[in-house]
Amino acid sequence: MPEFFTVLPPAVALAKLWQALPSTVPTETVATVEALGRVTAAAITAKEPLPAFPRSTMDGYAVRARDTYGASQSLPAYLVVVGEAPMGRAPGFSIGPGQAALVHTGGMLPDGADAVVMLEVTQAARHNEIEVLKAVAPGENAMRMGDDIAAGAAVLPAGHWLRPQDIGALSALGVQNVDVARRPRVALLATGDELVPPEATPGPGQVRDVNSFSLAGQITHAGGLPVRCGIAPDNQRALRAAAEAALTETEALVLSAGSSVSVRDMSAAVVQSLGAPGILVHGVAVKPGKPTILAVAGGKPVFGLPGNPVSAMVIADLFVVPTVWRLQGALHPPRRHSVQARLSHNLASQTGRVDYVPARLRPAEPGGEPVAEPIFGQSNQIFTMVAADGMIIVPLDATGLSAGDMVEVRLF
Amino acid sequence: MPEFFTVLPPAVALAKLWQALPSTVPTETVATVEALGRVTAAAITAKEPLPAFPRSTMDGYAVRARDTYGASQSLPAYLVVVGEAPMGRAPGFSIGPGQAALVHTGGMLPDGADAVVMLEVTQAARHNEIEVLKAVAPGENAMRMGDDIAAGAAVLPAGHWLRPQDIGALSALGVQNVDVARRPRVALLATGDELVPPEATPGPGQVRDVNSFSLAGQITHAGGLPVRCGIAPDNQRALRAAAEAALTETEALVLSAGSSVSVRDMSAAVVQSLGAPGILVHGVAVKPGKPTILAVAGGKPVFGLPGNPVSAMVIADLFVVPTVWRLQGALHPPRRHSVQARLSHNLASQTGRVDYVPARLRPAEPGGEPVAEPIFGQSNQIFTMVAADGMIIVPLDATGLSAGDMVEVRLF
Repeated sequence: MPEFFTVLPPAVALAKLWQALPSTVPTETVATVEALGRVTAAAITAKEPLPAFPRSTMDGYAVRARDTYGASQSLPAYLVVVGEAPMGRAPGFSIGPGQAALVHTGGMLPDGADAVVMLEVTQAARHNEIEVLKAVAPGENAMRMGDDIAAGAAVLPAGHWLRPQDIGALSALGVQNVDVARRPRVALLATGDELVPPEATPGPGQVRDVNSFSLAGQITHAGGLPVRCGIAPDNQRALRAAAEAALTETEALVLSAGSSVSVRDMSAAVVQSLGAPGILVHGVAVKPGKPTILAVAGGKPVFGLPGNPVSAMVIADLFVVPTVWRLQGALHPPRRHSVQARLSHNLASQTGRVDYVPARLRPAEPGGEPVAEPIFGQSNQIFTMVAADGMIIVPLDATGLSAGDMVEVRLF
Repeated sequence: MPEFFTVLPPAVALAKLWQALPSTVPTETVATVEALGRVTAAAITAKEPLPAFPRSTMDGYAVRARDTYGASQSLPAYLVVVGEAPMGRAPGFSIGPGQAALVHTGGMLPDGADAVVMLEVTQAARHNEIEVLKAVAPGENAMRMGDDIAAGAAVLPAGHWLRPQDIGALSALGVQNVDVARRPRVALLATGDELVPPEATPGPGQVRDVNSFSLAGQITHAGGLPVRCGIAPDNQRALRAAAEAALTETEALVLSAGSSVSVRDMSAAVVQSLGAPGILVHGVAVKPGKPTILAVAGGKPVFGLPGNPVSAMVIADLFVVPTVWRLQGALHPPRRHSVQARLSHNLASQTGRVDYVPARLRPAEPGGEPVAEPIFGQSNQIFTMVAADGMIIVPLDATGLSAGDMVEVRLF
């Protein structure tokens, strides 16, 4: 039973899959206010400068900086106040030599002014006259036109995951619509004669489907649209029909197979039959999750995942999640899913294999790092992952990790 | 102009706000498949054990462990194969002394069997007889009933943020609906005569509203439902009417005020007038964002945020985001928003104040930590946050940080 021809390291396996995928990304235009979490389909440049006019960053007096040079507590500069700059309108007057105008934070500087003296370093002198007690340099307490962003400057690259500040910045520039990648639909098809849906009462020997639901959550978090296609029986013809139908309607297919060897062999045959080039990877150097299939059929990725719930989530994290991001053209997934932590116990491993070990995170001591405590359980126990905050990754080349080592914990 | 009566450390300010908030959490029932990212309203216990029957975790032979004791390569145990356990059904036969049955991974063990011998350590002997080359202990290669979770065991506490594995585990238990906190509606009201909506072409002195859009994103990420209530003019009567209307329809109000002192004073008066107990905090020891108002009116939190886009996002992260989680009864927000990184440059600060400094993160060297590179910009420049991956937090008691220090970077 030579099941695994070559067992590949995860990075090599993923590269092999991606090389066979087309690089085109289907796009759509959405309202900027609806674009949070989407991935930009094209670079965006500023059509106008921000701010579009010189603005005060303080409450104070707009001045010509040179009129304040040498001013001090003992030798103030005297300036004549010629007006107050209104908010939201052009001042309608300008500043000449020896003149100043009251301005508020965010207000437009009158023509002629090139700096702002803070209110706190001025005092009233005679009627319409102020004493300036401290010199300002040109540009001080003010933003010049284009200081935030210049017209024509790059705002965001293509492949950028849109965050709250990006939506705010696009709104500031009046960008009301944005071209983004379509959310890829990802079909989820479970296999196994022992599986029943969550609404069923399992009979003897039956269990409810877990993977269609946990994997749907992972796909959702990666910006994809999970499409649950139900449970196919352990019957090659039925499984093939279900897989083919699922792939027609979606951009990717995740088959969560039963774990017995016979079912795995059947899944492989079905995946291979879906289209060229077919299976690219059969077996990965990951624990849990070794019996994994990566394939491409008709330009679409197809994943054959182990049936054990923990294995399925680990393999989805390693292969399905990055591929869902890639289908959106993302430069890199959002940097939100790993923390560095200090390991609480020794962990055994084998070199040449990546291990995922469920772990709880204890909060960092002040000035220290969080602590990762391994939870030992079997890869068929979904509740080890419910108890866990994430998974410690034991790298490919490690023969094990020692208590006190810094480790990467993938948040799950 | 004694603007700030007391400037409180952020943790103290937040505690003061929360003490004045009711602890009740409005709840609703949603389908488990729709509950990803929601917060549980009540503890959930397992109504049944998982698995509900003894299962094999390997392909092999179900046996009575004692029948294999002493078995080895040179002295195998001989067992008679009495059947094959089907997938998804009860075997319909039992195992007696000296007997075994073929089982597949995930299949139900026949009565009488208490362990599984892996296929790899058996070989065929005579017809219907196998040699077992290695002893197994009771329970080996099998899950007993309740090994994943026992009937009556705690599955999830109240206040738990639902992750993919939680949805999977609830599905495994047949829990099809779950009581969760309602998503709190959070009103966003911008103030400032200089503000226009993103669809407008700003005239001289006018700028587009940023905060209603960036803050909406932060509230969405925290599980809230942002309700944008537009822009109110710098007019106490109009602002009060708009604020009161907004608060009636929602569970919280965020006022993003203009930055000038006069507008801030007006905002404070309006917030104070909305209801008892009114303003609880006026000024926080945070840079940027000192002129912050925290209030409670009619049991609902009201936030007066500075108008500068960066300040507004920092204050939202410190006060609005945790409060939106608290309105959902969350034990703690999802652990997804901070990374520990090594600081690339010295950072000046003042003790008694928390500083938020925008930063880029460079990836970790193998075995090392990511590097945080400060981006120096003004708190009114939203594009410093577009360029940033997050904000370095300089703690309250630090007089500054040195290059090489480990720092917390809040991801934005």
